Amino acid sequence: MKNSRSAVLRLHCPDVPGIVYNVAKFIYERGGNILHAQQHKEELDNRFFMRVHFDCSGMNVTKSQFIRELEELARGFSMETNLSFEDERKRMAIMVSKYDHCLYDLFLKHKYGEIKADIALVVSNHPDLEYVAESFDTPFFYIPVTPDNKSEAEAKAMELFEKHYIDFIVLARYMQILTPTFVDVYRNRIINVHHSFLPAFTGARPYHQAYERGVKLIGATSHYVTEDLDEGPIIYQECIRVNHTHSVEDLIAMGRDIEKKVLSEAVKAHAEDRIMVYRKRTIVFE
Amino acid sequence: MKNSRSAVLRLHCPDVPGIVYNVAKFIYERGGNILHAQQHKEELDNRFFMRVHFDCSGMNVTKSQFIRELEELARGFSMETNLSFEDERKRMAIMVSKYDHCLYDLFLKHKYGEIKADIALVVSNHPDLEYVAESFDTPFFYIPVTPDNKSEAEAKAMELFEKHYIDFIVLARYMQILTPTFVDVYRNRIINVHHSFLPAFTGARPYHQAYERGVKLIGATSHYVTEDLDEGPIIYQECIRVNHTHSVEDLIAMGRDIEKKVLSEAVKAHAEDRIMVYRKRTIVFE
Amino acid sequence: MKNSRSAVLRLHCPDVPGIVYNVAKFIYERGGNILHAQQHKEELDNRFFMRVHFDCSGMNVTKSQFIRELEELARGFSMETNLSFEDERKRMAIMVSKYDHCLYDLFLKHKYGEIKADIALVVSNHPDLEYVAESFDTPFFYIPVTPDNKSEAEAKAMELFEKHYIDFIVLARYMQILTPTFVDVYRNRIINVHHSFLPAFTGARPYHQAYERGVKLIGATSHYVTEDLDEGPIIYQECIRVNHTHSVEDLIAMGRDIEKKVLSEAVKAHAEDRIMVYRKRTIVFE
Amino acid sequence: MKNSRSAVLRLHCPDVPGIVYNVAKFIYERGGNILHAQQHKEELDNRFFMRVHFDCSGMNVTKSQFIRELEELARGFSMETNLSFEDERKRMAIMVSKYDHCLYDLFLKHKYGEIKADIALVVSNHPDLEYVAESFDTPFFYIPVTPDNKSEAEAKAMELFEKHYIDFIVLARYMQILTPTFVDVYRNRIINVHHSFLPAFTGARPYHQAYERGVKLIGATSHYVTEDLDEGPIIYQECIRVNHTHSVEDLIAMGRDIEKKVLSEAVKAHAEDRIMVYRKRTIVFE
Repeated sequence: MKNSRSAVLRLHCPDVPGIVYNVAKFIYERGGNILHAQQHKEELDNRFFMRVHFDCSGMNVTKSQFIRELEELARGFSMETNLSFEDERKRMAIMVSKYDHCLYDLFLKHKYGEIKADIALVVSNHPDLEYVAESFDTPFFYIPVTPDNKSEAEAKAMELFEKHYIDFIVLARYMQILTPTFVDVYRNRIINVHHSFLPAFTGARPYHQAYERGVKLIGATSHYVTEDLDEGPIIYQECIRVNHTHSVEDLIAMGRDIEKKVLSEAVKAHAEDRIMVYRKRTIVFE
Repeated sequence: MKNSRSAVLRLHCPDVPGIVYNVAKFIYERGGNILHAQQHKEELDNRFFMRVHFDCSGMNVTKSQFIRELEELARGFSMETNLSFEDERKRMAIMVSKYDHCLYDLFLKHKYGEIKADIALVVSNHPDLEYVAESFDTPFFYIPVTPDNKSEAEAKAMELFEKHYIDFIVLARYMQILTPTFVDVYRNRIINVHHSFLPAFTGARPYHQAYERGVKLIGATSHYVTEDLDEGPIIYQECIRVNHTHSVEDLIAMGRDIEKKVLSEAVKAHAEDRIMVYRKRTIVFE
Repeated sequence: MKNSRSAVLRLHCPDVPGIVYNVAKFIYERGGNILHAQQHKEELDNRFFMRVHFDCSGMNVTKSQFIRELEELARGFSMETNLSFEDERKRMAIMVSKYDHCLYDLFLKHKYGEIKADIALVVSNHPDLEYVAESFDTPFFYIPVTPDNKSEAEAKAMELFEKHYIDFIVLARYMQILTPTFVDVYRNRIINVHHSFLPAFTGARPYHQAYERGVKLIGATSHYVTEDLDEGPIIYQECIRVNHTHSVEDLIAMGRDIEKKVLSEAVKAHAEDRIMVYRKRTIVFE
Repeated sequence: MKNSRSAVLRLHCPDVPGIVYNVAKFIYERGGNILHAQQHKEELDNRFFMRVHFDCSGMNVTKSQFIRELEELARGFSMETNLSFEDERKRMAIMVSKYDHCLYDLFLKHKYGEIKADIALVVSNHPDLEYVAESFDTPFFYIPVTPDNKSEAEAKAMELFEKHYIDFIVLARYMQILTPTFVDVYRNRIINVHHSFLPAFTGARPYHQAYERGVKLIGATSHYVTEDLDEGPIIYQECIRVNHTHSVEDLIAMGRDIEKKVLSEAVKAHAEDRIMVYRKRTIVFE
């Protein structure tokens, strides 16, 4: 394996003795060297999860051979596996409407090298933020959405995504609900930020709801998008202290900082293959 | 005014010019000296809230005279007022079931002088924690509660509270729902701790709910008790980061620390007359 | 007073009875209405601090008359006072070197209306970030600094600041030490961010120091600049949890988020006249 | 291996390929099953650290055989190893002076099962807290310390510790500096809490120092004790927001909560063999 200096293998399967040993052996015998291995056991389901980051620069088999032989190992343990190589950097699309704080934050963290993926393009249902994408030398596509043309608009977006080899999609305060069709195509590959501490304040205008309820902390949540709005597997959450002096406008302003934080943390984790989804929960390895 | 070194006046009224000046004048003319004044404006209702802590050791009027004249001032501004004197230290009752962490925390913070009120007695529907109350030299009353005797049991408790001049009640993980009758008597004087970040996970077993939803932060909330379970005005909230490695038992253990925190912060604020309730929200002056 | 809808009066003086009353009276008698008043007592020095935000749209005196009469009041109580009007919005200069994260953050928070001051210009000892200033339509001045020309360079900057009516200066990771002359001219008007939890890790390369010491939290601090490097009055601090897995580069990346936070919080507070400096401490009213 | 259901193996060595595989193989071939394995690489030293938690209920070798064979493996990789079995629960001694908050917290967390070690005894240089130890059925030993008898007093304590098979010592606000002799005997087995955010405010009266410096966050630090006061490897740190309104007494009160937190977290981690010390840094596996 020439180009890939390292690879990440994620797997889960029913928990039986010997999994760690057999995975370590599999990699070792093919000339790989484990840099970091992480495991997790879901007690209720007796299910074992593992993420292995290994050096594959000295591998004595080809990628396709490795993948084929891994399938055999997986069959033996009824494993679901996922393998990704360092040289196959993920490509992300950002969808955005008019708020720019998450968009700027993603561009800047990408520029600093904190996000290990490429920002391939930005899609928006409004033309307003084209200049931001331009200032970071990234293609911007304006795809208007109306109640009547939603499927059509999504089809356009999906075509773009295919053409640009998009691996995952980041909704950086994108103010449109996606159709089940779209969600299904990109299952566990669409990351959204909801501006509340889910499951509190689902739906519209969560800061207004928070104000009226008189909460003393507000939160933000990043999650994978599913067909059930605001019900997808949670990836990261953050909260911040508020008090009676804060107006709804203050909550919105304070919320921006934590929205950026939860979204960028989720994007970083996804880009580094640190997330595994199981039922409604995520395992996010550090 | 001999004994009282200081007093706290809380008031709220429709916002019109001159309130701060007139209150300052009222106190000054009677020989008082403002140590600290805090205000708040609820924008939606155009309502003004004020808390004044003033030195009354050099007052030139009696307490009852002061109170009478304050009523006049209040009438002029359609104020609701509340006055309390430092020498009239509040007396609290703690209600508890079998969990002891909040009970210990309250006793210790009281001992350190952090809670400016007296713990007059402990009431429990179980006999288990009598030894804790005893170790802090505090009377303990065991009042068993069954589905059939709830009103009777509450009547017994209320009798006790009257006899011991109880000002407010702290539910330190008391595992019984109070009747509307009881709640009404002690309106805005019963402080409860709910072991979730309200309004998420109301009702029973919030840590189990949190686990299943896969949240990445868990919370705790202290609030005044109202007829609507877990819907009362929130006083203090705290949250703590969790991840996929934590079992329900871990969440329960981690939750203990934040339950203690939110309950003791609410008790401190109530004891120092720093809380004002308006509709479903609290104003908690620092 | 026509244009000013409101004003902020800050004062401090030896603590004697009647200050709050007399200040309230002074404002009331001139047609002002107190919106919010805050006080603080430094116990060790028996010194009283006050900030009053008042509506002056209905004032019956001119600004200069108000100021003259305030001087009289101040004399009576040996007060130091500071008065600022809403219509006299502060003008800030940002000084920056090559790091752009604080610069972007200030521009964006200014754009969202969170910073109640104008960003008049950006000065840098490097040309690199001109494009950022330009993308926010703000004049950028490149003033190179060498060991030999430091005083000259500072003189140029000061000339610019005078010409542009600069009220205060924000060092957004400006990597030059200012001379005492410069510091003295802008006493308590230069805000710096130090990338550690002061007083830990003063001086150069604090993240490297933190890594070597093996701390489990890293911090950032905003403070007013004084002649003693990293010793000025602290305005805001923030910290973030780290662990053994984090490299120095990780600490630097994680630090960016809290550097932005502490600097923008300090700038907001300064712009709103919420800070008072006394000896080495700041009083930051909320 | 009859009694031990599981064991923890910690090791570190120069980083070479194959460590994870060889450790996994070693355990697997002896009938063990890895439950959880964690690794860390110190980049600067090219040193590899590993903690393996494995089920040893089905082991086909005796403990002593396992240990002997492990030595061979270790030699091959120049490993330092540490092995502990679940059935050999650690025994801790608490040393305390007059402050009781950390003592209560440790007893309660032990009672709740959060601390996986036995509290064998309490030693104090004051008789005051005997009743606390008694209320938790734990032997209390009063060993007075004067400038003249310090070595003698420490000798007495060490004798006690030997007699009671003490594995590690927790200084729960013990107000005496230990001699290098004592420290050396229990290297990396004495846990102290310092009431500041180290390395800020070493030495005496850190809350007073923090007040005077006007910091906006105060902290607490747990660390292993070394000959250099307050310089030992840091295990856990916590901080809390403060402001100008807080007196030194307030800081002390607020500090109690975080002192308890950092000490109990360190004790939990030590008891579960999750800490490895390397140079001045700790690796604390989660």
